[in-house]
Amino acid sequence: MNTDLPLPYPGALTDVRGIEVGHFTDPRRPTGCSVALARAGAGAVGGVDVRGAAPGTRETDLLEPGNLIGVVHAVLLTGGSAWGLDAAGGVMRWLEERGIGLPVGRAPGQIVPIVPAAVLFDLAVGDARIRPDAAAGHAACQAASGAAPAQGSVGAGAGATVGKLFGPAHAMKGGIGSASVSVDGVTVGALIAVNALGDVVDPASGTPIAGARAADGKTLRGSVAAVLAGEPPLPLLAGTNTTIGIVATDAPLTKAQARRLAGAGHDGLARAIRPVHTMSDGDTLFALATGQTRALDFNALCVMAAEAAARACVNAVRAAHGLRLGDAWLPSASDLIAYSSIPALAGG
Amino acid sequence: MNTDLPLPYPGALTDVRGIEVGHFTDPRRPTGCSVALARAGAGAVGGVDVRGAAPGTRETDLLEPGNLIGVVHAVLLTGGSAWGLDAAGGVMRWLEERGIGLPVGRAPGQIVPIVPAAVLFDLAVGDARIRPDAAAGHAACQAASGAAPAQGSVGAGAGATVGKLFGPAHAMKGGIGSASVSVDGVTVGALIAVNALGDVVDPASGTPIAGARAADGKTLRGSVAAVLAGEPPLPLLAGTNTTIGIVATDAPLTKAQARRLAGAGHDGLARAIRPVHTMSDGDTLFALATGQTRALDFNALCVMAAEAAARACVNAVRAAHGLRLGDAWLPSASDLIAYSSIPALAGG
Repeated sequence: MNTDLPLPYPGALTDVRGIEVGHFTDPRRPTGCSVALARAGAGAVGGVDVRGAAPGTRETDLLEPGNLIGVVHAVLLTGGSAWGLDAAGGVMRWLEERGIGLPVGRAPGQIVPIVPAAVLFDLAVGDARIRPDAAAGHAACQAASGAAPAQGSVGAGAGATVGKLFGPAHAMKGGIGSASVSVDGVTVGALIAVNALGDVVDPASGTPIAGARAADGKTLRGSVAAVLAGEPPLPLLAGTNTTIGIVATDAPLTKAQARRLAGAGHDGLARAIRPVHTMSDGDTLFALATGQTRALDFNALCVMAAEAAARACVNAVRAAHGLRLGDAWLPSASDLIAYSSIPALAGG
Repeated sequence: MNTDLPLPYPGALTDVRGIEVGHFTDPRRPTGCSVALARAGAGAVGGVDVRGAAPGTRETDLLEPGNLIGVVHAVLLTGGSAWGLDAAGGVMRWLEERGIGLPVGRAPGQIVPIVPAAVLFDLAVGDARIRPDAAAGHAACQAASGAAPAQGSVGAGAGATVGKLFGPAHAMKGGIGSASVSVDGVTVGALIAVNALGDVVDPASGTPIAGARAADGKTLRGSVAAVLAGEPPLPLLAGTNTTIGIVATDAPLTKAQARRLAGAGHDGLARAIRPVHTMSDGDTLFALATGQTRALDFNALCVMAAEAAARACVNAVRAAHGLRLGDAWLPSASDLIAYSSIPALAGG
């Protein structure tokens, strides 16, 4: 029962000048990867903030503000848990084929594209032996463009789920979402693959959108309220969640500012995902600054980053399609709306 | 002119109970990778300390002491700059084939081996299009054993060079080295691939071993003294150096202690490599604790880690073989000893 409703929030990461986005969705089982390319000019200034306790990452140390490399050519978000990190190699190869990367000499092959990456855990969704690989990363680049990307059950969001605090039986389908906000011609966009242990809430209204379901399977339990009422969370396997994403702006930033912009994005996650940044999540956000428009007050940019990230989370689960896996059923937010069993949602 | 002299320092990383080491050396050009396996029991407790400014890494964020994952199944050191990170995928596959990894479910494929990795830059040594890949990582595992590993121009040290502060024309061959020290039956070992911008000095005697050569090509210039005398270092391409390594102990450690043990290893690097931790080096050390012997005073373990790391650096360049690349000649420390032009070395 998939009902495609208009998404609550407009815009996308591709509204940021100099950013292209592409998905690869595996046709064999729900998994995939998504890439943001910053190939115009010399690349983008990059930062990262790792706030979940179970991250899976590649090339994040070079983003430390005091470190040397000042440029990022692409960022990869991928399913497949740590196995998916290999997809970054395919992104590197695609960039190399186009001569994009850090030149480290003049001889053939002396180029190193800088491609930080983060993974989410989706090995419980379908055949875990199928994981995004280098070919998947390459295919995501091949599909990239400046057009607004598809949202929901695609790319790194294909196998994403949410609302797992009381066990997978109560979970719902997560996904990947995007949104953007602009002020005075400067844009901040976000692309977030939401695979959270917690629930997703629209922070603008407090409306729960997707998360752990109550016993009827059609209404939301409210994970935070349940925990505060003393319901014990179910013990979970390590690292079986994680929300990963990118916030980007076309304003120019320093590397230190890029890191702080990623941190501001996490504030957006904190508003839209409850609980978030848990011991079972590896929540990681990258920031990119293409510098293709002009400077804007940095506090304003951080407000925009938090807002874009929160909105992207809401879009992610609203765009997702329900998924049947054998006897298990992972309904989507739009499925619950179609049930009309949540008045607040039926009106939203 | 390769002269195989006995190495100055005894022992190896494999003296640590529960650690196996394997190299893959590419037959096509000087590059390769080296793996330390901790496959006994549930793996080892791991930590990392990234102190160089141009690191290339994978799965380091999970080692943050506050983060969830408490276990490491292998650590990969590899050439190929960021391209080499793909070799970690081959290590993961080799471990998976043996059922070693973090279980994340009971279905096939629901296993995630934890394999942190760091790279060094060797793309200027031979055909840069040849880089360690997943097959290389797999082959290094296949070659692993508890026997003392080969040292010098093998594995991750195959394409390593040192003494580049005044340009590559004055450089010498680096390599990979190992050493261990034991106190009361507890061992700390190190495996270090030395590809430093700086010179290598034996800290026990202050004797320079390998580094930037003077105009005669047969004696060492002394990079630190030259800089202090006002000689300007040559501008270098970003990230074209890096020393990477592993310190391990069979004492039990917490994750926070493992991180500090890696930091102590860097003190060993500071003594043996001058300068070290520069903006052009991505110096990264991992620490592993197998817990297969017994506890020892932690300050003692840190002293041992610094000592083992420093000794491994000396062994690395002393075991290396000189390399001719077209018109260029990268002599080794043993070549310089054979020239007998450095009295202190001739006696060493």
